[in-house]
Amino acid sequence: MSMNTSATIDFPILRVSGTKGTSTTDLLAVEEPLEIRIAFGPAVDRSVKAISVTMRTPGNDEELAIGFLFTEGIISSKKELSAVSHCFIACAENKENVIQVELTEHAVPKLPETDRNFYTTSSCGVCGKGSIDAIRTVSRYCAADIDTQVIDQQVLLDLPAILRKHQDVFDVTGGLHATALFDSGANLLLLREDVGRHNALDKLIGAALENEWLPLNQTILLLSGRASFELIQKAAMAGIQIVAAVGAPSSLAVELAAEFNITLVGFLRNERFNVYTAAHRILVNNNEQIINK
Amino acid sequence: MSMNTSATIDFPILRVSGTKGTSTTDLLAVEEPLEIRIAFGPAVDRSVKAISVTMRTPGNDEELAIGFLFTEGIISSKKELSAVSHCFIACAENKENVIQVELTEHAVPKLPETDRNFYTTSSCGVCGKGSIDAIRTVSRYCAADIDTQVIDQQVLLDLPAILRKHQDVFDVTGGLHATALFDSGANLLLLREDVGRHNALDKLIGAALENEWLPLNQTILLLSGRASFELIQKAAMAGIQIVAAVGAPSSLAVELAAEFNITLVGFLRNERFNVYTAAHRILVNNNEQIINK
Repeated sequence: MSMNTSATIDFPILRVSGTKGTSTTDLLAVEEPLEIRIAFGPAVDRSVKAISVTMRTPGNDEELAIGFLFTEGIISSKKELSAVSHCFIACAENKENVIQVELTEHAVPKLPETDRNFYTTSSCGVCGKGSIDAIRTVSRYCAADIDTQVIDQQVLLDLPAILRKHQDVFDVTGGLHATALFDSGANLLLLREDVGRHNALDKLIGAALENEWLPLNQTILLLSGRASFELIQKAAMAGIQIVAAVGAPSSLAVELAAEFNITLVGFLRNERFNVYTAAHRILVNNNEQIINK
Repeated sequence: MSMNTSATIDFPILRVSGTKGTSTTDLLAVEEPLEIRIAFGPAVDRSVKAISVTMRTPGNDEELAIGFLFTEGIISSKKELSAVSHCFIACAENKENVIQVELTEHAVPKLPETDRNFYTTSSCGVCGKGSIDAIRTVSRYCAADIDTQVIDQQVLLDLPAILRKHQDVFDVTGGLHATALFDSGANLLLLREDVGRHNALDKLIGAALENEWLPLNQTILLLSGRASFELIQKAAMAGIQIVAAVGAPSSLAVELAAEFNITLVGFLRNERFNVYTAAHRILVNNNEQIINK
């Protein structure tokens, strides 16, 4: 995949509608990390501090940085700002993934107390490639090593209806994300729901860990919404080989799936789906998936 | 709002369909913070460390905690676990919002390097009430102080179509969240898109800050998806009085909107919407909103 800093990227896919598979391309929303730094203090004793790494779509990064600093209460007015600019980072692709906000000499940022209020993640490198490499070092299971799973396209097409039938909470609030684990015969093994999609997946993988089911290399993971980098990271950690999302995947989700040899399916709804990576695990009637692989 | 630890909560709303407003109730998905702690080391020298605070729906918290520790690479197998239990926290509502995972004496957790990989937020208290109080201390604008905005229901009903018309990237990828700012006459002022909904809103508020438009107390914020606590927090920081979401709000989003006197509208689509809080800012033809207020 060639990378850039635009908001979308074209990617070759296998599109399956009913029993027909067609090689085509799909536009992905770009997802890349952005590190937000602030520089503050008098000119003779300037401090620079990294405040946050967020997975964002490139574009309007200056607004994102100052909007984040303002909504988190770290700055309180435009008067505290003197400049905002991207920093060069040393990676192969020259990503504009670090942004530094210069405060005026007299501005005093209200920095969060990091001993209490923080969220940590292993997946935040400063370029997407770095994030993927970071995961490789901690993942116990690599789908490439245990590549034994093949499913029929009809199994995938059947999953959304089964999910809907079993989602007890979602139906009444419309406010919860669901993740579900199926075996290769479309039998539901686990279903977890949460306001946060990453929490729903952590609950599901936590339950699988308690049941001593890991690695989950003979299962299919279904996501009720979109597939972000973070969700594919968690799937990779659990050894999941096939991930199907009802919504769209991001560019970095697709890139990570490709690196980990995970079959990533998106837009699984209305009797059709797209296969973004590792299409060889899905048997499509007209066998065109071999071209795509 | 009475709080509990179940996954849903019933809440009184004003339901508007076309020109008709009806007082009724709606089930909300519960959102509450959970702090995940680990205890590790030999019995004679045990350490306890808070690892993360996440906004989750109560239920299956043990799975969430061990799933998070596993997918972040902090633990690598079930053998490292000895016990998982909730801790008592000293708040008025006796929330089960802290969970402690006990590792075996010989297990060595792979803790993240906090100088690099972290995400901070001011909105993470350990109970929802604490989170709301934390925001009050840093917010410059309080909607209660500057309560001058009233809009017609038809203005709200018109917004989704205007958003769709202007979303250039969303239409092609299906993978981006949008936030849009309108004036009281449904004129689009700003539109920002991102794979992360919090990023889209930070971009929008950052742009408004650059334009010196704050506080945004004469505008309407439209969210393309669901309304979580984090998004209402950011809206409150910018002085926004009316927030309308195409999707569902969470319980804590509604509670925060109520505390800050923000009008929160959900399920704005198909010529209808629900008003969860501060309905007095919306003129509905049959005037029934007064009952709801």
